[in-house]
Amino acid sequence: MNQLLRVQNFCVSSDGYGAGENQSFERPFGHADPGAMFAWAGATASWPNRTDPGGTRGIDDYFTRDFTNNIGAEIMGRNKFSPHRGPWESEEWQGWWGSEPPFHTPVFVLTHYERPSFTLSDTTFHFINADPSSVMAKARDAANGKDVRLGGGAATIREFLDADLVDTLHVAVSPIQLGGGSRLWESPEELLDRYHLETVPSPSGVTHHLFWRR
Amino acid sequence: MNQLLRVQNFCVSSDGYGAGENQSFERPFGHADPGAMFAWAGATASWPNRTDPGGTRGIDDYFTRDFTNNIGAEIMGRNKFSPHRGPWESEEWQGWWGSEPPFHTPVFVLTHYERPSFTLSDTTFHFINADPSSVMAKARDAANGKDVRLGGGAATIREFLDADLVDTLHVAVSPIQLGGGSRLWESPEELLDRYHLETVPSPSGVTHHLFWRR
Repeated sequence: MNQLLRVQNFCVSSDGYGAGENQSFERPFGHADPGAMFAWAGATASWPNRTDPGGTRGIDDYFTRDFTNNIGAEIMGRNKFSPHRGPWESEEWQGWWGSEPPFHTPVFVLTHYERPSFTLSDTTFHFINADPSSVMAKARDAANGKDVRLGGGAATIREFLDADLVDTLHVAVSPIQLGGGSRLWESPEELLDRYHLETVPSPSGVTHHLFWRR
Repeated sequence: MNQLLRVQNFCVSSDGYGAGENQSFERPFGHADPGAMFAWAGATASWPNRTDPGGTRGIDDYFTRDFTNNIGAEIMGRNKFSPHRGPWESEEWQGWWGSEPPFHTPVFVLTHYERPSFTLSDTTFHFINADPSSVMAKARDAANGKDVRLGGGAATIREFLDADLVDTLHVAVSPIQLGGGSRLWESPEELLDRYHLETVPSPSGVTHHLFWRR
């Protein structure tokens, strides 16, 4: 069974940005409003951080409920893991997700500044300074036959696209413009030479973009 | 955690029939062509009976891959299990699905004619003569905290809708007319007093109908 590298539930603005400018601890998505970009997911019944019962069970819910389906590991960029840049000033930072991260698998954080692995609940974070194909080999081993999720941000996804390692992408395009920030694409058409594309508009306002290899 | 009763990947014609007239061993869907009604699912990468590699990974694939997701038991009507009607002439018939049925859970077959349970691979078939809410109670116990799938056919789904036991429905409506047979609905609008509805057209030609309780 082939193990895929899958981008899932990655949110971008209508002009292709996954996050805004000036990302910081106070504003992890920079000038972008994450509430607006992720509202489609937060409204669904399967959203992992849901605190009240209910939630929608339409098409958006299929995407939130597929997030963990047959995934055995995640690869993410250091800027998704942390608001810090450059060498670690301390190793106290353990990610944005509290004591119960939503990954439930090994997570490989790409960084020039390695640090010891640690475990929170059923998620173990590893820090690795290597090229995309070496990281993919490690993640594939750790995934135990399951697929690997490529978690972003935009620069990390572009790096793996450049190395031709990405098998499928699900990108949720929101009807908001950011004008600047961390860019995934100028246009989804950039990928059409290598991928099939289906676009699925949702009543929530986002348009789901589904890519798979030709 | 609430255990849902979910209809999934149930296929009907544009005029609402889940199967045609004159169902038999030779023609399990009667005068309907199952190839035409299920083509959308058979083309996807996650179709369980796929023998060649490849397959689409667009929106239709989300539905085929969700088929087993968090499902712990199935309830089906006797006419889905078997082409025979009335008392069993023999108990040799073990379903349409060969030695590896695609269910992988306990399956409860609603019938007036009970017979002993049997197991094929990781699927166990039970035969039960009871009203919908009693069957649902048994299936919920067997599902071990997971959801229960309501597998059809149309008459069985209607029976559970009448008993108000169905939480979500995914119905794939094909652009073919049957004119007669086993009917799910005159129109999907019949359910709008009790359910939200989203419709999602697919490039394959089917329109996915997603219902969840108001």
